[in-house]
Amino acid sequence: MNGLMMNVQLSVTSIMEHGERVNGATEIVSYTRDNHRHRYTYRDAFRRTRQLANGIAGWGLAQGDRIATLAWNDYRHFETYYAAACSGYVCHTINPRLFPEQVSYIINHAEDQYIFLDPDFLPLAEGIAGECPGVKGWIVLTSEEHMPETSLPNAQCYETLVAAGDTSFDWPQLDENTACALCYTSGTTGHPKGVLYSHRSTMLHAYATMMPDAMGISSKDVVLPIVPMFHVNAWGTPYSCPMAGAKLVFPGSKMGDGATLAALINEEGVTMSAGVPTVWLGLIAYLKSSGMRVDSLNRVIVGGAACPLSIMEDFDKYGVETRVGWGMTEMSPLGSINSSPSSRERYSDAEFAKVRLKGGRPIFGVEMKIVSDSGEEQPWDGVAFGSLKVRGPWICSSYYKLDNSDAHAEPGWFETGDVATIDPEGYMAITDRTKDVIKSGGEWISSIEVENVATDHPKVAEAAVIGHFHPKWSERPLLIVVRNSDGQDLDAEEMLAWFDGKIAKWWTPEAVEFVDELPHTATGKLQKVELREKFKDYSFPS
Amino acid sequence: MNGLMMNVQLSVTSIMEHGERVNGATEIVSYTRDNHRHRYTYRDAFRRTRQLANGIAGWGLAQGDRIATLAWNDYRHFETYYAAACSGYVCHTINPRLFPEQVSYIINHAEDQYIFLDPDFLPLAEGIAGECPGVKGWIVLTSEEHMPETSLPNAQCYETLVAAGDTSFDWPQLDENTACALCYTSGTTGHPKGVLYSHRSTMLHAYATMMPDAMGISSKDVVLPIVPMFHVNAWGTPYSCPMAGAKLVFPGSKMGDGATLAALINEEGVTMSAGVPTVWLGLIAYLKSSGMRVDSLNRVIVGGAACPLSIMEDFDKYGVETRVGWGMTEMSPLGSINSSPSSRERYSDAEFAKVRLKGGRPIFGVEMKIVSDSGEEQPWDGVAFGSLKVRGPWICSSYYKLDNSDAHAEPGWFETGDVATIDPEGYMAITDRTKDVIKSGGEWISSIEVENVATDHPKVAEAAVIGHFHPKWSERPLLIVVRNSDGQDLDAEEMLAWFDGKIAKWWTPEAVEFVDELPHTATGKLQKVELREKFKDYSFPS
Repeated sequence: MNGLMMNVQLSVTSIMEHGERVNGATEIVSYTRDNHRHRYTYRDAFRRTRQLANGIAGWGLAQGDRIATLAWNDYRHFETYYAAACSGYVCHTINPRLFPEQVSYIINHAEDQYIFLDPDFLPLAEGIAGECPGVKGWIVLTSEEHMPETSLPNAQCYETLVAAGDTSFDWPQLDENTACALCYTSGTTGHPKGVLYSHRSTMLHAYATMMPDAMGISSKDVVLPIVPMFHVNAWGTPYSCPMAGAKLVFPGSKMGDGATLAALINEEGVTMSAGVPTVWLGLIAYLKSSGMRVDSLNRVIVGGAACPLSIMEDFDKYGVETRVGWGMTEMSPLGSINSSPSSRERYSDAEFAKVRLKGGRPIFGVEMKIVSDSGEEQPWDGVAFGSLKVRGPWICSSYYKLDNSDAHAEPGWFETGDVATIDPEGYMAITDRTKDVIKSGGEWISSIEVENVATDHPKVAEAAVIGHFHPKWSERPLLIVVRNSDGQDLDAEEMLAWFDGKIAKWWTPEAVEFVDELPHTATGKLQKVELREKFKDYSFPS
Repeated sequence: MNGLMMNVQLSVTSIMEHGERVNGATEIVSYTRDNHRHRYTYRDAFRRTRQLANGIAGWGLAQGDRIATLAWNDYRHFETYYAAACSGYVCHTINPRLFPEQVSYIINHAEDQYIFLDPDFLPLAEGIAGECPGVKGWIVLTSEEHMPETSLPNAQCYETLVAAGDTSFDWPQLDENTACALCYTSGTTGHPKGVLYSHRSTMLHAYATMMPDAMGISSKDVVLPIVPMFHVNAWGTPYSCPMAGAKLVFPGSKMGDGATLAALINEEGVTMSAGVPTVWLGLIAYLKSSGMRVDSLNRVIVGGAACPLSIMEDFDKYGVETRVGWGMTEMSPLGSINSSPSSRERYSDAEFAKVRLKGGRPIFGVEMKIVSDSGEEQPWDGVAFGSLKVRGPWICSSYYKLDNSDAHAEPGWFETGDVATIDPEGYMAITDRTKDVIKSGGEWISSIEVENVATDHPKVAEAAVIGHFHPKWSERPLLIVVRNSDGQDLDAEEMLAWFDGKIAKWWTPEAVEFVDELPHTATGKLQKVELREKFKDYSFPS
C-alpha cells in the first residue's frame, strides 16, 4: 500500500522557484573581470535566468542535449546552471585546467551543442574549436561593450542573448530522474569519465549538505564557494544557498588570490567558505603577511585533497572552525564530513589532532562499507582496512556512455578506489588509493601514512611511496623523495631513521631514492603509475 | 535523458540503519512509569527493533496492514515506530486524548490489526475493545513484572514479545512510496480523517526539518520532543534525531509537568525542544516559581496553536530562542518556521514583536500561495489576504479511504483552510480560518486579529469573534467575551472602546455579548460552528 502524499518531483526548478519567491531579496555578489563587485539579488538572477532560457529555447535543442560551460564562479555561470537544467537540458561544466586535448575529448564525448565561456578561456577555446565540429555556437560570458574579437565560429555575446529574452518563461515539468548536470572526472590514467547528475540527486545532495553537521547553511550565512563551479557544481553551493536563502559571494577568477579572498570575506561578511587546501594556504599566507583578520568567517570546509594539520591550527588562531569533507565527483560530491566531535573532551590534544584530520562521518544518505580483498565486510574499529564502497541516491550508477567500469563491479555499490578505516563513532579515514596500496607479506601498508611521516621531515619537499617487488615479502615500500632547498644533505640513512617510533617497524620503507621532481597530472594528482614505471627495473639493496 | 545516479529508495529503514551504524553510541533517555530514567543507545534501540520485528512477523500480517499505538513518548513507542514501518506495515498512532467514540471510530476505520498501548490507556482500551472486533491483539508496553491484569482480549506483554525475538532480521526492500505511518486529524466537525505518510515523505520531511533555519538538529543536540509521538510523529523528531545523531530525551506521560520537564532539561543537557504553547506556559510557570534555570536549552519550536508573545519574552530572559512553526497533520507537519530574521536590526522592538509571532517562512520543499475567493493569486506584500494553499512531497494528496475532500478541490494543491498574508520576505501570518473569516461589505476581516486585541484587555479571559448577518454589510463581527475574575464589571462600551486605534475602525466589532464559557473540542479547539448556531437568531442593535 502506498502513502497518500503528493507526487511532487524533486527538481532544481523547485530550488529556483523557492529562491526567487522566498529568498528573492538576498544578494549574490560576484567578482568579474569587468566589475569587481557585481551585486544583485536572487530575484534579479532568476528573472535573467528566464530571459536566458527564452534565448536558449530559440536554438531548437532537444530535451537532454548538453550545454557546456568553461567559466569561473560568477553570476552569469549561476544563471547558465539554472537556465540549462530547468529547461530540461544538461549543464555540462568543463574544467578549463585540463589539458586542451582532454577538453576537446570531453566536448566531443559529451556532444556539447553550445558552449558558454568566460573571455579568459578564449585562447583555450580558439585552440580546440577546430577539433570540436559538433559545437554549434560559443556564448561569451560578457557584455556587448566588452565583447572581444574572436576567431570562434558562431560566437555570441551573453548579455545580448539575455537582453533579447522575455522575462517570463514556462518551465517544463520534469521527471525527477531527468539529467540536469554533467561533470567529467579525470583519473590518473585513461580518458576523463562523465558523471551525469539528475534533478533528484542534486536536490537530495543539497538537502544533505545543509544539515548542521555538514555545511550547516542557513539564511544567516554568507557563503563564498572557492571550489569551482566547473568541478562538481562547487560542492552543491549554487543549489543549497538559494534553498537556504544564504547570500552568495562568487570569487570569479580570483580563487587562488589570498588578497581578493580576504577582501571579499571582510567586505561581504562571509561566514562560510569551501575550498581545497591550496586556497587556504594562499589565504592564510596573505593574512599572516598583511596582519588582516577574517572575523566574520565562522567555518571552512576543506576537501579535494588531504588537509594539512597546519591549516587547521592556523584557522584555530583566527577563530575559524575547519571541517574536513570527503567526496568524489561520482558522489555529487559529498560523502562524509568531519565537524568537530561532540565529545571533544574525550580526546587528548594529540588524539584530537588525529581525529580532526579524518574524512569524517558519512552524511545521512550515504552508506559506507569497507571490504577486504575477498569481499568480506570489515569491522568499524578504526584499525581494520578495507576497500571503501558507497551507495546512495546521489552516487553515480555508471559513467556517461560507458557501460561497464571497475567502479561498479559489485551491483548497487560504488567502488571509490580508496582504502579506508572507520572507527566505532563512524569516522572514516582514507589510508590509501586501492591501486597504490602496498602488500607486504600479505598485509596492507598505507602509502599515505608513510608519505605523511616522510613529508613531516624538515628537509623534504615532497615524497611518494610505491610498492615494489621484493623476493621475500612480495612487495615492500620504496620511498621516493624530493629534497627541499634546506635539505640537499639529506641522505637515505637520515631519512629512514626519521621513521623510528613514528610508524610500525615493518611499515618503514625498505629503501629511499632521491629525485628532482615527482610526476603530476594536469589537476595536480601524483602519478604513481608513472613512478612505478620509472622504477620497474629497480632492485632493493640486499 | 535520465541522470545516471543510483536508484536508492528513500526510506525510514535507511534512517534506522544510519542511526545504528553511524550514531549507534548516542543515547535515548526515556521517562516511563516504571523507570524515570530509562537509558540506552540507538544501537540498543535498533537491536530491540529487530527483535520486535521478528515477533510481529509471527502474526501473519500482510504488507500495508495497520499496527496501532496508544502510547506516550518513550523508547518502546520509538521501537514500535520502526519495527512496524520498516517491516512494511503502517504505524498508526492514535491520539488517546480524543473522545472514546472517536478512538473506536478511528481503529475501525483504519482496520487496525494489533494495538500497542501504554498501561495508562488500559481503561480507555478496555472501554472500547468491544466496539473494535477487528483488533486481533493488544500489546501492553511494559515488562512481565509490571504486566497488569486486564479484560482486553489477547493481551500480550511487550517485553515478552521482544525477548522472544531473534536479534537479526532481514528488512524488506521497500518502494519509497510505500505507506509507513498513519495519523488521524480531528477537525471541529465530522469524523477524524486519516493522513497516510510514505517512507519518501517522511524522510524528505525529516531532511527539511534538520535545516539550520528550521529545527537545526545536529549531533551536538539533545532533543526533548514534548510534542506527542501520537500526533504527527512528534514533528518528525523520532526520524531526524537518529539521522543527525542527536540524543533523544522522551518525557513519557510527563509532557504537561513543568517540574519533570525542567529536571529532564537540566539533567540531560537538553539543547532543543518542541511543543505547543500550553507546555511552555507550564514549564515557564515552574521555572518562575522554583527559581530554576534551563541553561543548556538553546531553542524551542512552538507550534500547534498561536504562540503568545509572553512565552517568547519569558524565554528571552532565560536565553532561549523561540521559533514559531506552522504546519498541519496533513503536512507531516512542518510547513513554515520563524527563525529570527537575519535582518533583526531593520526592525524596531514593536515591529520585531509582530514579525516573530508570524508563522514564518516556508521551508524548502513546501510551496505556498494565497488566493482570493475568485481563485486569483494574491501578492506577497504582507497586506493582501488569501486562502492559503500548499504543495510539496510531504503534503497529503487525499485522506485515507476518502475519495474527495474540499481540501483537494484544486488539483495539485492542498487547501489548508487558513487565511493568511505573506510579506515580501516570505513571512506567512495566519489571519483566520477560512470558515471563520468575516466578510463585511465584501472585504475580509481577520477574526483572529480582532480576538487577539480583545484578549489583551485585562478583564478578558477568552474571546471569540464570529461573522453575523447584517442588513447593510452582509456580515459584521460579533464579539463574544468571557470575563475573567477581575472583570465582572466589564461592559460593552468599555470593551468596544478598547479597540480604538488598535485596529481599523471598520474591523471593530459591531456588538459584544458576554457568556460564561466558550465551546471547545476534545483537543481544545474553539468550536465556532456551535457559537454561530447559538447566536443564529441574534440581531445587531440598530
